[in-house]
Amino acid sequence: MKALNSLYEAQKIAFSPFVFQTVYTMSSLGIMDELYEERDGLTIEEIAKRKNISEYGVRVLVEMAKAADVLELIDDKYTLSKIGYFLTRDEMTKVNMMFTQDICYKGLFHLKESILNGKPEGLKEIGPWKTIYEGLSILPEQLKKSWFEFDHHYSDNSFGEALKIIFSHHPKHIYDIGGNTGKWAIASTQHDPDVRVSIFDLGVQLKVAKANIEAIPEIRDRVDYNERDMLDPNSEIPAGADVYWMSQFLDCFSEKEIEAILLKIKKNMKPDATIFIMETFIDDQRFPAAEFSLIATSLYFTALANGNSKMYSSTAMKYIVEKAGFETVQEHRLHMDRFHTILEVKLPK
Amino acid sequence: MKALNSLYEAQKIAFSPFVFQTVYTMSSLGIMDELYEERDGLTIEEIAKRKNISEYGVRVLVEMAKAADVLELIDDKYTLSKIGYFLTRDEMTKVNMMFTQDICYKGLFHLKESILNGKPEGLKEIGPWKTIYEGLSILPEQLKKSWFEFDHHYSDNSFGEALKIIFSHHPKHIYDIGGNTGKWAIASTQHDPDVRVSIFDLGVQLKVAKANIEAIPEIRDRVDYNERDMLDPNSEIPAGADVYWMSQFLDCFSEKEIEAILLKIKKNMKPDATIFIMETFIDDQRFPAAEFSLIATSLYFTALANGNSKMYSSTAMKYIVEKAGFETVQEHRLHMDRFHTILEVKLPK
Repeated sequence: MKALNSLYEAQKIAFSPFVFQTVYTMSSLGIMDELYEERDGLTIEEIAKRKNISEYGVRVLVEMAKAADVLELIDDKYTLSKIGYFLTRDEMTKVNMMFTQDICYKGLFHLKESILNGKPEGLKEIGPWKTIYEGLSILPEQLKKSWFEFDHHYSDNSFGEALKIIFSHHPKHIYDIGGNTGKWAIASTQHDPDVRVSIFDLGVQLKVAKANIEAIPEIRDRVDYNERDMLDPNSEIPAGADVYWMSQFLDCFSEKEIEAILLKIKKNMKPDATIFIMETFIDDQRFPAAEFSLIATSLYFTALANGNSKMYSSTAMKYIVEKAGFETVQEHRLHMDRFHTILEVKLPK
Repeated sequence: MKALNSLYEAQKIAFSPFVFQTVYTMSSLGIMDELYEERDGLTIEEIAKRKNISEYGVRVLVEMAKAADVLELIDDKYTLSKIGYFLTRDEMTKVNMMFTQDICYKGLFHLKESILNGKPEGLKEIGPWKTIYEGLSILPEQLKKSWFEFDHHYSDNSFGEALKIIFSHHPKHIYDIGGNTGKWAIASTQHDPDVRVSIFDLGVQLKVAKANIEAIPEIRDRVDYNERDMLDPNSEIPAGADVYWMSQFLDCFSEKEIEAILLKIKKNMKPDATIFIMETFIDDQRFPAAEFSLIATSLYFTALANGNSKMYSSTAMKYIVEKAGFETVQEHRLHMDRFHTILEVKLPK
């Protein structure tokens, strides 16, 4: 890259919050949609009139958006560029933008203190909690919507392929560690009418999972609930599982904590049991845009969520797995789903 | 641009506050300087040790910085990319980054309301003022430093060439409208021992200018002070000037207000007098990085400064000049200085 181009890119970073807020404002005022509809473009005067905004307001926005290559200008008409098109129409991009604005923007101002203190110092911008998990269910509506849409975008659609992989091992008893809302317990007991599932999670999570599962008569007798704080050094995981399932669970912990959780499982594990770790690994993404999203998500964990976890690379996860005395015997990349990988982990022979 | 690249660029915008805060944090923790010194690069462990920061903290920062092309990774050592080099070493970029963080970051969250209300709604994030000008002298030290370094970066070094242009007209009496701290009055009276300067400005500004000018015996008798609110419809500018000088003054006003100011001057102006308007016009910049900076600065005016002004293009300014019944007879681009243009404006013959 030539020096002048690099200087320009540096400038774009130095002013990037201006660009972000410009695009967010244009989206939420409906200007982006208006430009999507009018393929031949609109003048500043036309946009101002349609949206009942001052020409001055429209002008500062479109000038910034054009400089950031989000809009193009031909004669006096502005149109969406390809980048602008994705910012308006691509689901992942929209979900990311709303998550950034509603959950992260203000909190990121405190990134430096978060890193120095090992705590999510930005969280105070949205609520008085120690971790965001305590506040999720009581976030203001708009924030809750943005958080869950972000969360779901990266976790839906992976279970179909995952079920095939796990049930090729014919497990009779699955331990679902970090069972969340019971989604996996429901999917797997519905998939196999003989399988049993034990969920291990915090009490507050178990309540939600139980309510969901009890509503389905044909599975409810095959699921049990075990309150466990996996970070409590005195907590144990009993023997009995053929398969341990952890889906987007370990990324909520630090490397040391992940190792401790794996060792807790290992303590009572049957020699031929299998641990399946499903994650969105940074280095397993097919699209650079997805990789970028995941890397940024780490900083959400740092500044907003809990201060010490992150999205991992599969290399890093396999390293922790090995450190805890396990072997990664296979790495399944889910092909239908765009984001997930399942690590198949065993005790060494 | 291919669709996949555009999607990637859209993603970078959706997460751009993450990138900004990452670079800001790495700069202010001294990590960028450390990487500048160590041309062969540093590992995460080495950075963590030198800066006494957790390896986790360093890891989330460098992974984000690498994804944003600010760092490069060879084996396990991180080095500055060219973009990273400019973010660390280029004065303009550093000044812009500190201005963004200290003055604008939080306030930009309110860009949408600022545009809808025509008021700088982001200003409440730094102080309880109607415009930022009321607060400038009492901003917290770090904010004041960042504001003035930004302001000075784009205004210093233009006076040398400007003096030559203005004094080729041999003015006897200059009206310095928007005289600020008296810098121009000092420069021009020192340049020509016979010239008189009348400063027109708000009382609070005149006080500062007067204090600076009274300290220089050889010029103080040739400067007078005229309290004027140029937005007050009843205020007048008397006859008498050979030259009217407005340096980075008109960008503090809306298009309508600029027209009103020009008409106020016109009312009592001698037929052969000249108005010189010195500005950093968006469309006159030699470097795209400078153009980008100026366009972003408009949004600072929208969300933080006064809610209705902006950096103008020379085309827009000449249009207003014409609308007020003047002619732009010449356009002087300053060559030594990188940013400024002087419009030479006369009454039509």
